[in-house]
Amino acid sequence: MKIVILGTGEVCRLLAPAFLSLGHEVVVGTRDPEATMAGNPRYRLLAARHPELRLVSFAAAAEAADRSGLVVNAISGPVCLAALIPLAESLTGQVVMDVSSPYDWSRPDAVLDPVNTDSLGEAVQRALPGSHVVKTLNTLAAQVMPEPGAVGPDHTVFLSGDDETAKARVGDLLRALGWRDVLDLGGIGTARATEMMLRLWIDASRALGTHLLGFKIVR
Amino acid sequence: MKIVILGTGEVCRLLAPAFLSLGHEVVVGTRDPEATMAGNPRYRLLAARHPELRLVSFAAAAEAADRSGLVVNAISGPVCLAALIPLAESLTGQVVMDVSSPYDWSRPDAVLDPVNTDSLGEAVQRALPGSHVVKTLNTLAAQVMPEPGAVGPDHTVFLSGDDETAKARVGDLLRALGWRDVLDLGGIGTARATEMMLRLWIDASRALGTHLLGFKIVR
Repeated sequence: MKIVILGTGEVCRLLAPAFLSLGHEVVVGTRDPEATMAGNPRYRLLAARHPELRLVSFAAAAEAADRSGLVVNAISGPVCLAALIPLAESLTGQVVMDVSSPYDWSRPDAVLDPVNTDSLGEAVQRALPGSHVVKTLNTLAAQVMPEPGAVGPDHTVFLSGDDETAKARVGDLLRALGWRDVLDLGGIGTARATEMMLRLWIDASRALGTHLLGFKIVR
Repeated sequence: MKIVILGTGEVCRLLAPAFLSLGHEVVVGTRDPEATMAGNPRYRLLAARHPELRLVSFAAAAEAADRSGLVVNAISGPVCLAALIPLAESLTGQVVMDVSSPYDWSRPDAVLDPVNTDSLGEAVQRALPGSHVVKTLNTLAAQVMPEPGAVGPDHTVFLSGDDETAKARVGDLLRALGWRDVLDLGGIGTARATEMMLRLWIDASRALGTHLLGFKIVR
């Protein structure tokens, strides 16, 4: 299928090759493609390794999206809403996999915003009212998202979203990446639960001295 | 050792027999012992089964605490601070194991208070400035706290606290109850992380149809 990745940061650089290796077509959207190629050496390296990747503007990427494929919101949490709102019409009917965190990594504290009475997943759904938003993979280091085995054989990835067909499509993609325990928590409101786990991820990473960790719901 | 449990709810009813069976002396504190015996039939049943349990007022329980033992805050989250503040002087120098959640179970929503920029664990530490507060067991159903095997052989219990000796004592008690993976997250500020997991516990319990679940940090 065709997968559009919005954002050219670490998440894009790790997910794009994994999607390509599964045989998917990948289009990457960025604010300014020329600026990305000039000023983002890590993305340039990715593009050199994978000449089949297409890099276009956010607007062109949203236009290129296919309703039988999916769109990944891999834009940094604090700024993603401003980037997504202008794309709402183009993304109508699309499945949007949202992996963002309501967290500004440049801040020294670990304060989430929004939190508790709202979530970034819900805010993305409100920003894209015609799309089917599925929150997932946001409880993990980017390195682990496409490679669950980097942590261990058995840990849990979560799905939150209001559309069952959209969740099934995202779940299939996750299983193709090697995820075995894909847990559907319910509607997009359950993104509050997984976004709030970021705090534990930060503290446990510090305590254990590694970002390579996963959460298993033992039952 | 002598263990003082403050509160006569479900947590007390499940922890007290477990502590007794390990050979500890257990004193239970409540607002009004006569009212508890008259109006709390589940506690009355516990007391009938375990005549060695002593039920006294919060103030008498705090006075009875032993610096080589520990005190458990098993009072309902929203009201525990008001009950603890008058005990601060008596509890000076004591290890206080705080298992509370910043959550009002009678509310239909699942909103935490405090959250994100504060935690109930930190608030308990501020209410008891001379005590050594250790947050733990708050990520689990009460039934699982003293019996990790009720869920499965291997899941994680967390420790947050500023005093290493206090955390070591609580960790030893947890291991005696059967906990194998006791993860020290750091200072009491890390209670924010585990208190925020309540939301995932609620949503995952609903999705899986059971409260008998645990969180394993896979690494």
